[in-house]
Amino acid sequence: MAEKTKEVVESWSFLDTVESNFTPLVVIELAKGTKEETIEWFTKRIVDKKANGGAQLLVKPLVTENGVENIYLVGASHLRLLLGAETVGLVKECSDKSMRTFTYSSRKTFKDFADDNHNFLTMAECQYIIKHELENLRAKNEKMIPGYPQAKLYPGKSIVRRLLTSGILVQIFPLHDREELKKLRHRWYGRVKVGYQPLDDIRCYFGETIALYFGFLEYFTFALIPMAVIGIPYYVFAWEDYDKYVMFATFNLLWSTVILEVWKRICAILTYRWGTLLMKRQFEEPRPGFHGVLGINPVTGREEPVYSSVKRQLRIYLVSLPFVCLCLYFSLYVMMIYFDLEQWALDYHKENESNFSSLMLYVPSIIYAVVIEIMNRIYRYAAEFLTSWENHRLESSYQNHLILKVLVFNFLNCFASLFYIAFVLFDMKLLRQSLATLLITSQILNQFAESLLPYWLQKRYNRRMKKRMCSQKTDRDLSIAEQVNMEKEMGTYLGTFDDYLELFLQFGYVSLFSCVYPLAAVFAVLNNITEIYSDALKMCRVYKRPFAEPTANIGVWQLAFETMSVISVVTNCILIGMSPQVDALFPDSKMDLVLTVALVEHLLLAIKFIMAFVIPDKPRDIQVKLAKLEFESLEALKQQQMKLAAESLKE
Amino acid sequence: MAEKTKEVVESWSFLDTVESNFTPLVVIELAKGTKEETIEWFTKRIVDKKANGGAQLLVKPLVTENGVENIYLVGASHLRLLLGAETVGLVKECSDKSMRTFTYSSRKTFKDFADDNHNFLTMAECQYIIKHELENLRAKNEKMIPGYPQAKLYPGKSIVRRLLTSGILVQIFPLHDREELKKLRHRWYGRVKVGYQPLDDIRCYFGETIALYFGFLEYFTFALIPMAVIGIPYYVFAWEDYDKYVMFATFNLLWSTVILEVWKRICAILTYRWGTLLMKRQFEEPRPGFHGVLGINPVTGREEPVYSSVKRQLRIYLVSLPFVCLCLYFSLYVMMIYFDLEQWALDYHKENESNFSSLMLYVPSIIYAVVIEIMNRIYRYAAEFLTSWENHRLESSYQNHLILKVLVFNFLNCFASLFYIAFVLFDMKLLRQSLATLLITSQILNQFAESLLPYWLQKRYNRRMKKRMCSQKTDRDLSIAEQVNMEKEMGTYLGTFDDYLELFLQFGYVSLFSCVYPLAAVFAVLNNITEIYSDALKMCRVYKRPFAEPTANIGVWQLAFETMSVISVVTNCILIGMSPQVDALFPDSKMDLVLTVALVEHLLLAIKFIMAFVIPDKPRDIQVKLAKLEFESLEALKQQQMKLAAESLKE
Repeated sequence: MAEKTKEVVESWSFLDTVESNFTPLVVIELAKGTKEETIEWFTKRIVDKKANGGAQLLVKPLVTENGVENIYLVGASHLRLLLGAETVGLVKECSDKSMRTFTYSSRKTFKDFADDNHNFLTMAECQYIIKHELENLRAKNEKMIPGYPQAKLYPGKSIVRRLLTSGILVQIFPLHDREELKKLRHRWYGRVKVGYQPLDDIRCYFGETIALYFGFLEYFTFALIPMAVIGIPYYVFAWEDYDKYVMFATFNLLWSTVILEVWKRICAILTYRWGTLLMKRQFEEPRPGFHGVLGINPVTGREEPVYSSVKRQLRIYLVSLPFVCLCLYFSLYVMMIYFDLEQWALDYHKENESNFSSLMLYVPSIIYAVVIEIMNRIYRYAAEFLTSWENHRLESSYQNHLILKVLVFNFLNCFASLFYIAFVLFDMKLLRQSLATLLITSQILNQFAESLLPYWLQKRYNRRMKKRMCSQKTDRDLSIAEQVNMEKEMGTYLGTFDDYLELFLQFGYVSLFSCVYPLAAVFAVLNNITEIYSDALKMCRVYKRPFAEPTANIGVWQLAFETMSVISVVTNCILIGMSPQVDALFPDSKMDLVLTVALVEHLLLAIKFIMAFVIPDKPRDIQVKLAKLEFESLEALKQQQMKLAAESLKE
Repeated sequence: MAEKTKEVVESWSFLDTVESNFTPLVVIELAKGTKEETIEWFTKRIVDKKANGGAQLLVKPLVTENGVENIYLVGASHLRLLLGAETVGLVKECSDKSMRTFTYSSRKTFKDFADDNHNFLTMAECQYIIKHELENLRAKNEKMIPGYPQAKLYPGKSIVRRLLTSGILVQIFPLHDREELKKLRHRWYGRVKVGYQPLDDIRCYFGETIALYFGFLEYFTFALIPMAVIGIPYYVFAWEDYDKYVMFATFNLLWSTVILEVWKRICAILTYRWGTLLMKRQFEEPRPGFHGVLGINPVTGREEPVYSSVKRQLRIYLVSLPFVCLCLYFSLYVMMIYFDLEQWALDYHKENESNFSSLMLYVPSIIYAVVIEIMNRIYRYAAEFLTSWENHRLESSYQNHLILKVLVFNFLNCFASLFYIAFVLFDMKLLRQSLATLLITSQILNQFAESLLPYWLQKRYNRRMKKRMCSQKTDRDLSIAEQVNMEKEMGTYLGTFDDYLELFLQFGYVSLFSCVYPLAAVFAVLNNITEIYSDALKMCRVYKRPFAEPTANIGVWQLAFETMSVISVVTNCILIGMSPQVDALFPDSKMDLVLTVALVEHLLLAIKFIMAFVIPDKPRDIQVKLAKLEFESLEALKQQQMKLAAESLKE
């Protein structure tokens, strides 16, 4: 086996030709003052042959007017990228319109493939491949990073991850493609038009995770429109009849189940087209921050840091869980202060009836909304710190624990006051007012903090940079240096977490109390339309280009949205049961009222679960395509087995 | 590709040697008067080389004193069985204690493998392989079965399935191994002892599906013991304090969640040891009864019968669904008659207070229990007819629709009267009495109808057969003939459906109203202990040996049990809320009572779902083993890709 591998690896040596004229794809920024020997060792490992454990990529220092600045441009030959595409398991469309895992040997069967067509792989895919190859550059028998004895290495450790954690490597980021970006911007938000977003183009430029977020955002906005349209007359005509409210709430509850189920189908269609639905899961490496004592990993059999899962469980249940509970308690405490303030404002208004005092009525809500936002942000740092202290081995496990912590706190923080008003104070008027204030304030704050502020800062910075640069700009090469220097100062996009969280909370505002404030859906739709534009602006203008991340679904968020829609069944049923109109229907017995509400609630929940069960997660044609691929692979396996058996019998 | 296949297939020709002395494994019974040319063609196809599209098995007619009786014994050479084991994807234990998919080329790495060790594959595995090979014997270019022009064939159609549907093939069944069976019987129920069942031996003899049923039955019985033990003092001391009942019900609810989650883990441990947890799903062929117009199957690309799924949906929603609803209505109607009868008996007892009249009080319940059993059995036939008329393509889809139909009806039939008594009549005494009568009657009826009656019939028949045979018995070969003749008349075991259904309903009796009748668990435990013995008796003595069916879990039954445990949370909360003791706690406001009950119910449901989410489905060591296998296969794939890439570059 070992011999075979060696032979294989050596045959990669044809890639040795160093192309001096290459397209820079990824930028590596090393810390200022990094030792010469380290740089030499690192760049040598990047360009070294696969046979010697290198990544066989191309690397070039960036030369600016200030000389070499420890910034390196990484690229790769076309052939190298194709072989890399096979390694990461990219799925592309074949000439016969089926989706298949790309292999170099079967390259001719793929759509648009030609040996001289350098656009077969999108730039995002090329950058993803380079990132993958860099991260899989592993230590051989180095015990430490040359020049940095404190940065320990062991065989199999990812070099890039160690460089990152020891601060030698400042950042790695993919370069923007100015031409493509301009085209994308134009198609995406350049024209004032009503239409779908160019999801396929977004996917080509930013990768699947981000395209799927924008797909979800768009889908969700469309899905809210019926709720908004039905909600408007309730506001306009001030309908207060209970039967209309019951109808509205029932529609909302069933509708929210349907849209979440249908999203799974649309998601399957999108990711099938993009090839990620079929992409095999790669074996997950330990996340960069993971640390532990060197030991034998029972799964890989390699020597690598291991950390006892009992210790981790102890940290989770004895530290993180109590801390989260404490934060939840604190959040409830702040809420009670808000209600005191609210009461004080009301009293003040009663005493001195003036314009000022009636304005004062809104002050507590606004203050509370701002405080909530601040608390959310502070808690977020604490949650990140705690989750990283829990020392999860895998990025996915880290993400799940972080999301769970943040979701629970955000949920309570945003909705506790509304629950209190609804089910303790029984004040529907205050509920409606608070809901409106919270919803609108948080939307404005978010839009401002997330997109407009960074955009304005970035624009100011860019203008200053350009002014400084323009005067010295002489040739084509400097233009890349200019671009790199500008992009490396841009903020880093930290993933879709915050964007999904915002949608999740919005979904809560819309669905939890939908029968009290039908206008919520209208605001949500309006917000989402501008959100699409501001998020697009953010992606294209404010942040560094992020690496593409292949994904097949929106992951844990699907579960979060579904949980929210289950909770909203309960809240809406109770709200309807409490409304005076329904109350009046059961003049003799409150018991009958409560029992009826409970019965209806259970029926609705049962219908929800049955609907979720009955609606298939994938459309029929995707199911057939997947079954076809599975059938083919089983047939191929059968052939292979027969061949191997025949060979072994011949011996 | 086609050429390669041919080459491969031809190399199988070394298997041509016909061994005259072979172990008969499977019996094929053809209809009396089957045409000579059909028999000749069929047996030729069975023994024919793989290269010619045969199964390359061994076949021998059974010779009895009456001459040839159209019964054939099928066997295979040791080598053929090993190659077959690779085809069906059997997973066996390696010398290093890991579980791996068996391949002929890597045979030496497996535990206990030796070229002359014919016990490497268990007899059940050999029979499963032969069944698989026979079912995969496909028509080449025959248009019909020779001699039967009405039995149409098309290329790729399974010959055995067509022979079965056209009635030429009466049955295929595996032979018992008298020696092994005797040993198994002794270990299983031969000794009077308290201890675990020999699940591994059962699995070796009967296959995974049946072993898993017995494993579940045993586990479930053990899991019920705590409930039974806690339940006894309630009966003995006639405790009626509400707090004790609340504790009992709460314990039951959480306990039922825990046992269902823990079962998943135990199931994973068992099926990992048996290799079925790792076994790849085979591509599912159309079920025997499926019919349609010849067309192109979009998945396989083969010409085979296709049936529009729209038509099937119409049949399901326009015929089956209304029919099931009608049956449910009828069942409720019968229930109302039962309550009239019950009332009549009560009146009668009041008028003439005698021993006879007090006995009469039990008559309606007993009659109703018997009627329920009869209705269940009749409905079962109707459901089977309807589901088969719906013309499902796959056996799994057929099974799911059948199970759903039968479950819903059985649930209503068995529990509707109890729900009526509990939540309409509010008569807890009657509920307790009905529950006891229904539970005990159905248990006695089941034990009698399922095991004892067939056992007695079979024993009588065997005695008669033996008497007739013994006088003519001359040599060793005739003893196999005797065995075949005896076994072919035995009943056919129709799968674990009825056994699971019985457990499911029992679980319902125990959990739905557990706080009213704590003794139910005691009866369930007692019943299950005898059930283990009577089911074992049934498997070993009454029925033909069934073919082994590999399976990794108990499938849809897990979902059914979980649904039942969710429903039981609701019913128990209501029952506790209705009890006079709890009622007395809220003397002022019935409202508070209802609201408290609703709150507790929702909390319990939330705890249930969180527990189900938090408890991992597989124990940690199994997770590590699975991850290790996945890692190895990904590594192997990477090596293979590099090899292929290197090869293609050399060209």
